Amino acid sequence: MYDFPDKVFLNGAILATSEAKVSVFDRGFLFGDGVYEVMTCYRGQIFCKETHFQRLYESLKKINLSFAMDGIHEPLDDLLQACDLDDKDCMIYLQITRGVAPRKHAFPKNTMPTLMMYALPFSGLEVNQTPMHVVQLPDYRWHRCDIKMTSLLGNVMSHANAKEQNAHEAILVRNGVVTEASHSNVFFVRDDLLYTHPANELILNGITRQVVIRLCKELKLKVREEAVGKAEALQMDEAFLTGTTTRIASIKQMDAHLFYQGDEAGTVTKALQEAFLNFQFDSSRVK
Amino acid sequence: MYDFPDKVFLNGAILATSEAKVSVFDRGFLFGDGVYEVMTCYRGQIFCKETHFQRLYESLKKINLSFAMDGIHEPLDDLLQACDLDDKDCMIYLQITRGVAPRKHAFPKNTMPTLMMYALPFSGLEVNQTPMHVVQLPDYRWHRCDIKMTSLLGNVMSHANAKEQNAHEAILVRNGVVTEASHSNVFFVRDDLLYTHPANELILNGITRQVVIRLCKELKLKVREEAVGKAEALQMDEAFLTGTTTRIASIKQMDAHLFYQGDEAGTVTKALQEAFLNFQFDSSRVK
Repeated sequence: MYDFPDKVFLNGAILATSEAKVSVFDRGFLFGDGVYEVMTCYRGQIFCKETHFQRLYESLKKINLSFAMDGIHEPLDDLLQACDLDDKDCMIYLQITRGVAPRKHAFPKNTMPTLMMYALPFSGLEVNQTPMHVVQLPDYRWHRCDIKMTSLLGNVMSHANAKEQNAHEAILVRNGVVTEASHSNVFFVRDDLLYTHPANELILNGITRQVVIRLCKELKLKVREEAVGKAEALQMDEAFLTGTTTRIASIKQMDAHLFYQGDEAGTVTKALQEAFLNFQFDSSRVK
Repeated sequence: MYDFPDKVFLNGAILATSEAKVSVFDRGFLFGDGVYEVMTCYRGQIFCKETHFQRLYESLKKINLSFAMDGIHEPLDDLLQACDLDDKDCMIYLQITRGVAPRKHAFPKNTMPTLMMYALPFSGLEVNQTPMHVVQLPDYRWHRCDIKMTSLLGNVMSHANAKEQNAHEAILVRNGVVTEASHSNVFFVRDDLLYTHPANELILNGITRQVVIRLCKELKLKVREEAVGKAEALQMDEAFLTGTTTRIASIKQMDAHLFYQGDEAGTVTKALQEAFLNFQFDSSRVK
């Protein structure tokens, strides 16, 4: 999953990765002026495709980037075919930037946006068994985390900080409460009640987060979209991360605190992992 | 100044701009994972070169990007020569990113950073006569604005918002006080006292801001590095913006409020504009 693909789709052409280059005046390079999506594809079907494309549409709208989204589907099919991934499990990365223009902050007029996509083999048709070790870090990102944009230095630095502490992820704390992680959402469980930060401007409303909330309803588990305090987080029975490639991963350790011993994640986390797996297999529901 | 240059320096080579391309896997493009500087050059001498390079060094350090800065000077000289700008007035843009690696948030190991530079003719050896029209907007950027990084979507969107209102710049307000503008610093004057936001993690400590504070001392003008309230800002006698290419520009209008009528900026602003011009001409002091 974390490798270079062989081929990249860039502005109308499928290129060898070594040939896939953008101008240094692309606003994606100069300003981080772009948005993106990461999707998974199981058995030839993109998981929650409509929801991902709806979010992409909203991200574009929020940053005032006019882009004809209808034009993505055919090139994406072509790319998957060219990569011999059209009937295989894979992950898809898709980025749209405001295109190439002389460097000035203001939005350029009549600039052609840049569309870049690639796919890599990825199998997510199993439970994520990694017992996650996370550390709490200050959430110093901007206040529009609802936009899935490529100005990601804050996320990147937080994640790198966690890695330096030999942890898998950074749990971000703003104004005393947990918001989300550097590139995943966070859920907590106490007394069979689930808690996760409300989907406002301080978090990215993950597709997997949305699916988990839906599955909770089906499993008759109550979800409160309420922020959990920094210290309170350590008092919870269970905790887990959600994300497109992470799916659902139990948090075993947060800072020095262990949520469980050994290899057995909590019962609610495990029930949701199973329900999520079944959901992924049910092609009629993953549109 | 806002045009494409003919040539670009990129990773060791001076290229025609149309050839200056980076991999779509450059972390500058994927994550906004880079830092930059904008400098001006008068009569063949880079204005405050040491201070700019010191800030670049600090930005690199803050984002944990290891880069041999000594290697910049010779290529920069070569670039200015190749552009026939080595003895002319110009502006220089310089960007360093964490380089090319498969897309994952964590910092890659042993990756060669990307260095990109270009120069354009620019004459700043005069007073900036533009009477600036600015609007107050919420400062929703991240909390590490002291880092001069390329994850600039927040700045870009604020500036675009101001432009839509036919203003030149966005004056950013966080927690009820003015921090800075989307790509310049802000000073206010009342009763011959100057106010500007302290150089903490909420603003970029502009080189021109630093020069202005120094010039104030020489002119026996008192500067308070204190934040000015949103409403209080409109009660000030004078206001001006500072920045590398802006130099010192008087603010004539903030939202509906006019700081002055006609074309005559305030006396303190004008005195500083003159002092700044003299400072620029004094090659012994602009190191």
